[in-house]
Amino acid sequence: MSAPGAAEPDDPRMLARIERDGAEDVVAVEEPLEIRVDGAPLAVTMRTPGHDEELALGFLHGEGLIDRAHPAGLTDDLAGNAIDVRGPLLHEPGERSFYATSSCGVCGKGAIEQVAVLSGPIGDGPVLPRELLAALPERMRQPAFERSGGLHATGRFDASGSLLCVREDVGRHNAMDKVIGRALIDGGIPIGEDVLCVSGRLSFELVQKAAVAGAPILVGVGAPSSLAIELAAERGLTLCGFARRGSVNVYTHPARVAD
Amino acid sequence: MSAPGAAEPDDPRMLARIERDGAEDVVAVEEPLEIRVDGAPLAVTMRTPGHDEELALGFLHGEGLIDRAHPAGLTDDLAGNAIDVRGPLLHEPGERSFYATSSCGVCGKGAIEQVAVLSGPIGDGPVLPRELLAALPERMRQPAFERSGGLHATGRFDASGSLLCVREDVGRHNAMDKVIGRALIDGGIPIGEDVLCVSGRLSFELVQKAAVAGAPILVGVGAPSSLAIELAAERGLTLCGFARRGSVNVYTHPARVAD
Repeated sequence: MSAPGAAEPDDPRMLARIERDGAEDVVAVEEPLEIRVDGAPLAVTMRTPGHDEELALGFLHGEGLIDRAHPAGLTDDLAGNAIDVRGPLLHEPGERSFYATSSCGVCGKGAIEQVAVLSGPIGDGPVLPRELLAALPERMRQPAFERSGGLHATGRFDASGSLLCVREDVGRHNAMDKVIGRALIDGGIPIGEDVLCVSGRLSFELVQKAAVAGAPILVGVGAPSSLAIELAAERGLTLCGFARRGSVNVYTHPARVAD
Repeated sequence: MSAPGAAEPDDPRMLARIERDGAEDVVAVEEPLEIRVDGAPLAVTMRTPGHDEELALGFLHGEGLIDRAHPAGLTDDLAGNAIDVRGPLLHEPGERSFYATSSCGVCGKGAIEQVAVLSGPIGDGPVLPRELLAALPERMRQPAFERSGGLHATGRFDASGSLLCVREDVGRHNAMDKVIGRALIDGGIPIGEDVLCVSGRLSFELVQKAAVAGAPILVGVGAPSSLAIELAAERGLTLCGFARRGSVNVYTHPARVAD
């Protein structure tokens, strides 16, 4: 796929040129990233290079392991695909893993209870017109997607619908981690008055990350899952799906949506 | 979302009824599943209930941990969200984890080399008309998606384009694991003459699962990533993306596609 005239992506490493059917084409880059804490490997994610510090910090925040920006930097080994974050963490990794410690074990109820432990209360937040929420996906700048068709995006908008930050990644969780990592670095957590918007479907994990970051409203282009709705309802988050063609479905806490 | 008159999904547990704006709506169910081997927890995945035995077996196959169907069954605890697979495994879990043992560590080259260890050679496979490959997504029966808009799908087709098996899940990796698990149970691995088709984008992990299962052709509705293309090229797999509206892009090994 290619769209002549599209804007340049944030980072040239996000896209790769390939040959297909004898002509040049552009695809989204996918590479592993090892996230380390004080030199010890913690996790590996398949991600699009660029904004790796944000990705690592946002990931650790969503897991409840940090509550502020820690110093972090790419290491020289592993072809530049490792990033080291300075500790200490708020608790041992895995200690509060929802499927290991919740009273009912592996079930939706346990998963939801675990997020409550990780996240503070979500504030009142703004009340926004339904048509503004429905239009947010169109306002997300996605230059790498326009050139490759192969990336998800997450955007952060203020209450007037202005785009504050957008990140693209082959992994939809990574795109949100990057936006939240950026907010951590800028001192913008919790996301008390702003809206998060994702280009795809609304899974439990995306609502978890948004809830831990304190976002009062999460909008998605796609469908929510049952557990995403349950978690949003329990945490006080307004969950909106199928935001397209001027319409949006509101699944939880509709008091923040003005008709 | 709802589509009156749509077919029933394979399993009634795949969909949940919710209330939205005072009316009934239908969403895809997402619940955790703990995969155990001889009683020991190995992994947790967020999945749509139904076909859990296939999911567990397909997951273990993609990790190179089994090469045939093992006895497996849901346990009575954890609200039915745990499945136990009988061992022994081919090697210790994590022993061959690509990011831990490959010579170059965490990089695309190491990941690709690791898949070569896990998978046998991919056979010649069929040569199929381009228009048949482009039409496969339309032939995938997706009743749960039609009712909820919230599930990914993977289908297995024979060389005439007939649908042999289709599975839906909120997680796209899970949908492919279920199809491959079904093939393991039916003795249909390697997938030497058939085609796999996915409803979304083509990531490294999806190509990995298809390659380990021996599939000669993988078709996707969405875009491939750079590492998905590199892996398919290296393993001898024909990778096709953007299969929609009668057209398809062929990224690797085009000898299996007849114009």
